[in-house]
Amino acid sequence: MTDFFKGIPQIRYEGPQTTNEFAFRHYNPEEVVAGKTLAEHLRFAIAWWHSFAWPGGDPFGGQTLQRPWFGDTLDLAKLKADVAFEMFDILQAPFFCFHDADIRPEGKDFAENTRNLKTIVDYIGEKMTGSNTKLLWGTANLFSHRRFMSGAATNPDPEVFAWSAATVKTCMDATLQLGGQNYVLWGGREGYETLLNTDLTQEAEHAGRFLQMVVEYKHKIGFKGAILIEPKPQEPSKHQYDYDVATVYGFLKRFGLEGEVKVNIEQGHAILAGHSFEHELALAASLGIFGSIDMNRNDYQSGWDTDQFPDSVPEMARAYYEVLRAGGFTTGGTNFDAKIRRQSLDPEDLILAHVGAMDVCARALKAAAAALEDGGLEAQRRARYAGWETAEAKAMLGSDLASIEAMVREKGINPEPRSGRQERLENLWNRFV
Amino acid sequence: MTDFFKGIPQIRYEGPQTTNEFAFRHYNPEEVVAGKTLAEHLRFAIAWWHSFAWPGGDPFGGQTLQRPWFGDTLDLAKLKADVAFEMFDILQAPFFCFHDADIRPEGKDFAENTRNLKTIVDYIGEKMTGSNTKLLWGTANLFSHRRFMSGAATNPDPEVFAWSAATVKTCMDATLQLGGQNYVLWGGREGYETLLNTDLTQEAEHAGRFLQMVVEYKHKIGFKGAILIEPKPQEPSKHQYDYDVATVYGFLKRFGLEGEVKVNIEQGHAILAGHSFEHELALAASLGIFGSIDMNRNDYQSGWDTDQFPDSVPEMARAYYEVLRAGGFTTGGTNFDAKIRRQSLDPEDLILAHVGAMDVCARALKAAAAALEDGGLEAQRRARYAGWETAEAKAMLGSDLASIEAMVREKGINPEPRSGRQERLENLWNRFV
Amino acid sequence: MTDFFKGIPQIRYEGPQTTNEFAFRHYNPEEVVAGKTLAEHLRFAIAWWHSFAWPGGDPFGGQTLQRPWFGDTLDLAKLKADVAFEMFDILQAPFFCFHDADIRPEGKDFAENTRNLKTIVDYIGEKMTGSNTKLLWGTANLFSHRRFMSGAATNPDPEVFAWSAATVKTCMDATLQLGGQNYVLWGGREGYETLLNTDLTQEAEHAGRFLQMVVEYKHKIGFKGAILIEPKPQEPSKHQYDYDVATVYGFLKRFGLEGEVKVNIEQGHAILAGHSFEHELALAASLGIFGSIDMNRNDYQSGWDTDQFPDSVPEMARAYYEVLRAGGFTTGGTNFDAKIRRQSLDPEDLILAHVGAMDVCARALKAAAAALEDGGLEAQRRARYAGWETAEAKAMLGSDLASIEAMVREKGINPEPRSGRQERLENLWNRFV
Amino acid sequence: MTDFFKGIPQIRYEGPQTTNEFAFRHYNPEEVVAGKTLAEHLRFAIAWWHSFAWPGGDPFGGQTLQRPWFGDTLDLAKLKADVAFEMFDILQAPFFCFHDADIRPEGKDFAENTRNLKTIVDYIGEKMTGSNTKLLWGTANLFSHRRFMSGAATNPDPEVFAWSAATVKTCMDATLQLGGQNYVLWGGREGYETLLNTDLTQEAEHAGRFLQMVVEYKHKIGFKGAILIEPKPQEPSKHQYDYDVATVYGFLKRFGLEGEVKVNIEQGHAILAGHSFEHELALAASLGIFGSIDMNRNDYQSGWDTDQFPDSVPEMARAYYEVLRAGGFTTGGTNFDAKIRRQSLDPEDLILAHVGAMDVCARALKAAAAALEDGGLEAQRRARYAGWETAEAKAMLGSDLASIEAMVREKGINPEPRSGRQERLENLWNRFV
Repeated sequence: MTDFFKGIPQIRYEGPQTTNEFAFRHYNPEEVVAGKTLAEHLRFAIAWWHSFAWPGGDPFGGQTLQRPWFGDTLDLAKLKADVAFEMFDILQAPFFCFHDADIRPEGKDFAENTRNLKTIVDYIGEKMTGSNTKLLWGTANLFSHRRFMSGAATNPDPEVFAWSAATVKTCMDATLQLGGQNYVLWGGREGYETLLNTDLTQEAEHAGRFLQMVVEYKHKIGFKGAILIEPKPQEPSKHQYDYDVATVYGFLKRFGLEGEVKVNIEQGHAILAGHSFEHELALAASLGIFGSIDMNRNDYQSGWDTDQFPDSVPEMARAYYEVLRAGGFTTGGTNFDAKIRRQSLDPEDLILAHVGAMDVCARALKAAAAALEDGGLEAQRRARYAGWETAEAKAMLGSDLASIEAMVREKGINPEPRSGRQERLENLWNRFV
Repeated sequence: MTDFFKGIPQIRYEGPQTTNEFAFRHYNPEEVVAGKTLAEHLRFAIAWWHSFAWPGGDPFGGQTLQRPWFGDTLDLAKLKADVAFEMFDILQAPFFCFHDADIRPEGKDFAENTRNLKTIVDYIGEKMTGSNTKLLWGTANLFSHRRFMSGAATNPDPEVFAWSAATVKTCMDATLQLGGQNYVLWGGREGYETLLNTDLTQEAEHAGRFLQMVVEYKHKIGFKGAILIEPKPQEPSKHQYDYDVATVYGFLKRFGLEGEVKVNIEQGHAILAGHSFEHELALAASLGIFGSIDMNRNDYQSGWDTDQFPDSVPEMARAYYEVLRAGGFTTGGTNFDAKIRRQSLDPEDLILAHVGAMDVCARALKAAAAALEDGGLEAQRRARYAGWETAEAKAMLGSDLASIEAMVREKGINPEPRSGRQERLENLWNRFV
Repeated sequence: MTDFFKGIPQIRYEGPQTTNEFAFRHYNPEEVVAGKTLAEHLRFAIAWWHSFAWPGGDPFGGQTLQRPWFGDTLDLAKLKADVAFEMFDILQAPFFCFHDADIRPEGKDFAENTRNLKTIVDYIGEKMTGSNTKLLWGTANLFSHRRFMSGAATNPDPEVFAWSAATVKTCMDATLQLGGQNYVLWGGREGYETLLNTDLTQEAEHAGRFLQMVVEYKHKIGFKGAILIEPKPQEPSKHQYDYDVATVYGFLKRFGLEGEVKVNIEQGHAILAGHSFEHELALAASLGIFGSIDMNRNDYQSGWDTDQFPDSVPEMARAYYEVLRAGGFTTGGTNFDAKIRRQSLDPEDLILAHVGAMDVCARALKAAAAALEDGGLEAQRRARYAGWETAEAKAMLGSDLASIEAMVREKGINPEPRSGRQERLENLWNRFV
Repeated sequence: MTDFFKGIPQIRYEGPQTTNEFAFRHYNPEEVVAGKTLAEHLRFAIAWWHSFAWPGGDPFGGQTLQRPWFGDTLDLAKLKADVAFEMFDILQAPFFCFHDADIRPEGKDFAENTRNLKTIVDYIGEKMTGSNTKLLWGTANLFSHRRFMSGAATNPDPEVFAWSAATVKTCMDATLQLGGQNYVLWGGREGYETLLNTDLTQEAEHAGRFLQMVVEYKHKIGFKGAILIEPKPQEPSKHQYDYDVATVYGFLKRFGLEGEVKVNIEQGHAILAGHSFEHELALAASLGIFGSIDMNRNDYQSGWDTDQFPDSVPEMARAYYEVLRAGGFTTGGTNFDAKIRRQSLDPEDLILAHVGAMDVCARALKAAAAALEDGGLEAQRRARYAGWETAEAKAMLGSDLASIEAMVREKGINPEPRSGRQERLENLWNRFV
């Protein structure tokens, strides 16, 4: 046992009335809602990068967090893993997620990186043996090192493509070894700073081929999890190719991958792309590519990815409502891609940020389930489109413009608008949140 | 002759040094640049809606413009057409564009709308006989009337779908009759106000089928022009389905229409979607769906579509550079989807707004052509990707992750980043603008 | 009795469990919270303009709402007032607000406008005799008519200044006559479209003098209510001078009015200015100029003022928390500056939009009061600044840079940062919302 | 001589036709425009932080730039100064600017920081003896170190206030010693992350007192330069108190400092605050607080401060037009608060970024001067307000609402709007850019 979290108890459910900071007030993992326990519904995951690797810097300031495991050695990486599993235990976290660069020290070359990764993956594997925490997904950090500054799969230099492909191979191997349920690709440098030096066509073709290779390798090694793309419109790049769910869908169709790859949707990325979180979720479900979520919140007044812990039950309830309408998570889950503020220096801050987030997720999920079970919203939605259930309407869809024009003329069709009832639906929704 | 533009002379090219407000200083239609005249390159079009139908209202104020043709009768619609052709003549405008609702009075039902449209289309056809101005594109206004408030093709009510399909049929007929070179669809109400009452899947299927019908009808009537979708992310709807070029591409792929339909890209819509205009143009060209442009400018500090006349040569030069890289316009052109400010009350304002816009377009096109002819930018772009020309790099793309990983390991590949040279390219670009 | 709301009952409190759409679930006007009834705390007002005058138009579409009182006659204006008071009764609304242009027909000149206003104000005065609904505030519409297109007090034309001043005089008289508790000025056209034609200095001086005249006239006629400026950064103008609370404060200081004029803060305007609602409220309170609120919500993904009915309890609770910290409303109140969506065609929509909004306001106020009563948040805030309570710290503020530098050097001051505890405070906050 | 810029020649003016990358095409320092040389007008300054201290990191990636002087020793700080003066010489830069943290190594305590600063300031002083480059302004970095994470002057901890005051004292001393012409304060951490832990009133009072101390110390030591506040709305903080020019003005009025302190306006900060650059400049001039500019450009599609080198002549010409209208710079100048992109690795990139920026500034200044000399824009501006020159209009401003109302009624004033002529003015402007 390290003493990083010394004095912090395991977090248990005590109910809404407790004033104990170190307790769940709403997240009772075993509570059954809509046929599943909250633990099964929510599938919470802790992000290794924000919780254990982030030093607290921002564009105008350096490190604020001082962690005993900061440094670039294997021993410190193991200490970091020890602390991580202590936190998983404190929070009863069912899952975690990682990039290679979060868990292993940076090596001087590819071989050393691979050796370091192997060492730490073995170490984590051992720790998982005595733990209830599983791997939700693994991923490769193809954006922080300066070699990726002009892209990974889309780099003008084929050597960077090669390095990236090789790295993804090792990360997929690691994910398989640790029983990961998904493998994620986020392309923070797959984009451009200026069109003046960019060949969009060539970069797209390389990105498409890269993703095909990932899918081929998945099948080759028998990885049963989902391959997930994580859309983001910009930041760090001026423009990123995986802009939003609709853009990723077009990309998948272009390269014949829409049956093989799904999306991991992040609240903050949706906001940056000009969408609500629930829009991206509903769209992905409608397109058949919904996979998993990165749960956080973006400050609505800031123009960058603030990755804050979520705190708004009504907003998250909208999101979980779409998750539940889509049938709930299968391999996916709720990954807290959220970081404490850089002024939140204390170990308690890290724990309590997660406690609060898990509680608001639980409230949101329960509200969403209640609204869905009530059925009123869905009944009104169906009623609005009921006109399309007639044989005549269906026949019209199989018809043509000239025939429809003749019909409109003959029947004197002159449609009268009907209320969209938005405020009434919002009132109904507010009964549950 | 009406006397609306009384005293305003035909605008002629007088060169950069003239101080005559009523002259072109840069747009010499016959000047040859990169093998074509400026007229052939730019293919300017006047928008009937902003120039002749808009009363000057905004969300907080009503009509400011007082035009003798305002009102809902056939005689006034003809007067409007008379004035329009006088303006085309004053500006030597090669093209115009229209919605049905711009040119005809609103009828009490579909039959009257169709009769009114036919009357006015015949009238415009006669006027075109004695004019050099052609029709760039026609389109149907499926967003202003209250019957469209919940969508046209995507309306929950099949009767509105029917009305919309019938209307598009009449507008395509009108466009064919007037020799239009394109037919455009902008879906301002094809979207939603709230997800709570919206079925994304059904609406998308209806939109896809609608567009298929449009393409089928085009072939049936022998219309040779292009069918163009005009993307916009929002406004008036909270979310519009044709969000941006990438989204439209995915939609076309989904419904098998990527070989049949292209895009009409508007500067202001690109900005609202979080993109630069040149991004949308370059992306459309890269995806093989570039069609035409709506030229205007959006205020960068306002969050809605300001549809101002363009005034920035460097920005427009970036846009025309992408147009030229894509091979220039074929059926498309430069439609001024721009409105004078509501305080610009005088007839002179309307003329001079276009004069200024045509001049900055001409400067921008000439700058873009010079930069392309210089070749320096394109040479540097190609050089940046030269590594991909090797047989080894090409072979890697046909390979797989495991092989690449082995290669990286064996060769000790450790890529060193190279400068992206952005500022140097910007300096080079600034030699031409 | 008109039959517009036929069949709609008076709304009564039935408690959270009711499934009756036409009931309050949280707003029990007589419930006492923190020493006052909810009615006394919240002081709800209905906005005449959105509820009775707005036809449902947006920049891309015209009228959707069809009201029997639409039209520009005195009889219709009286019918509108009849319906308004029926709605006030249905909702038990304690207050209403109006612009002159909402309640009277537009005349052909100033004299007719004044006569019309007088007629309707008398009529409303009679209706108020038999009603419990009072006037929260009156205001003049100095932005919709084309004469105001270039500003009212800041118009380049002195005649428009004169017209505006005269109009405000009549509206202040009307507000006094009806017992209004505040008089509001919103300057939608006090700003500019382009700096190229604008004299910022002269326009500011005119605006300052205009406001001084308003204050002078208030005292002259013995109006005891507050004079309130309503900040908004833009829309309809590209830039509006009353950008936000901080800007208005500077303006008031410049013209010596900071003791005479307060602010009416609108959620949507705060958002457009890049602020949270609670920021603007807290800042106004800190500067001593907090007056009243316009309650609505802005869509976070839209760049214009959507004026939607509020629906988010956590957000509104933050706002009411600042209101309560400032001591609650005195002359001010909660004006619903909110409009139903243009698709919400039915009379029920109008009623239920207000019912839902009043309920979420009540929930928010109760949550805020509970959080304030708990005291935990305020205790932690005070504790964070406790270091400033020492005599030494206070002395330092009265000292100078050189002395402080000597002290830092001598004492070897080397401050260690302390956690800002943001997530813990957010968790504590979430106990109450 | 270091060999960092080996092979790069001194940049000289060669005229617009040169194809030499290492030459000025538009910036001829001795060219006289509107009575002053370009050098006297523009007063270019190089920013030590971006050019010599920035490692190329962003929120998702670390160092890309590898500079031989990176590291935290006095010897390396001297090497950095050597390279800086070599760059000043190559560019013939008339000025530079610095933060203490840019030029000296970070010490373990205040005393060491002060010693380090003194050593380096002496070293820079010696270098300035043999150089034509002067100090435009100095400033203290009160935002990067973790001790400032919760503010400097506004920190809840009085020890941080003390440290900050002491540091500013040493930086003002350094600025005086080096003959600096201004002293700047930018408050990147003077703001908040969450209102929940913030006392706005107390923080404002401390900020006000701090600034008073700065002014008092200026007078005490006989510093003749200007004290400048640099507004920014957010980033790194969620909200910064010096939001924009209007906010700073109100703050100065509140603390009686409007005659003592001016503003340093940055293009990118103006954009983030929802303003155009020219707005902020024109407003500052109108309020009598215009001081200096930080010249860069913000990406209009990104929501953070991109600090790119400027490249748009029309935009910068608008800015310099306002500078010239305000009488031009006195103590202020054009500081390039701009950083090369993190992919611009080569020493040439650093030089050429400045060359390009100086050239576009020169073009912009010349265009602005020509437009001002032409006089057409100003004549039209004056003409628009000519109505206010009458005795009657002036008398009205000295009058009251009731008198004005009587006058409107008696004279039957019914103002007719006049065109704002925006497009015509834009056309006229475009003759010069």
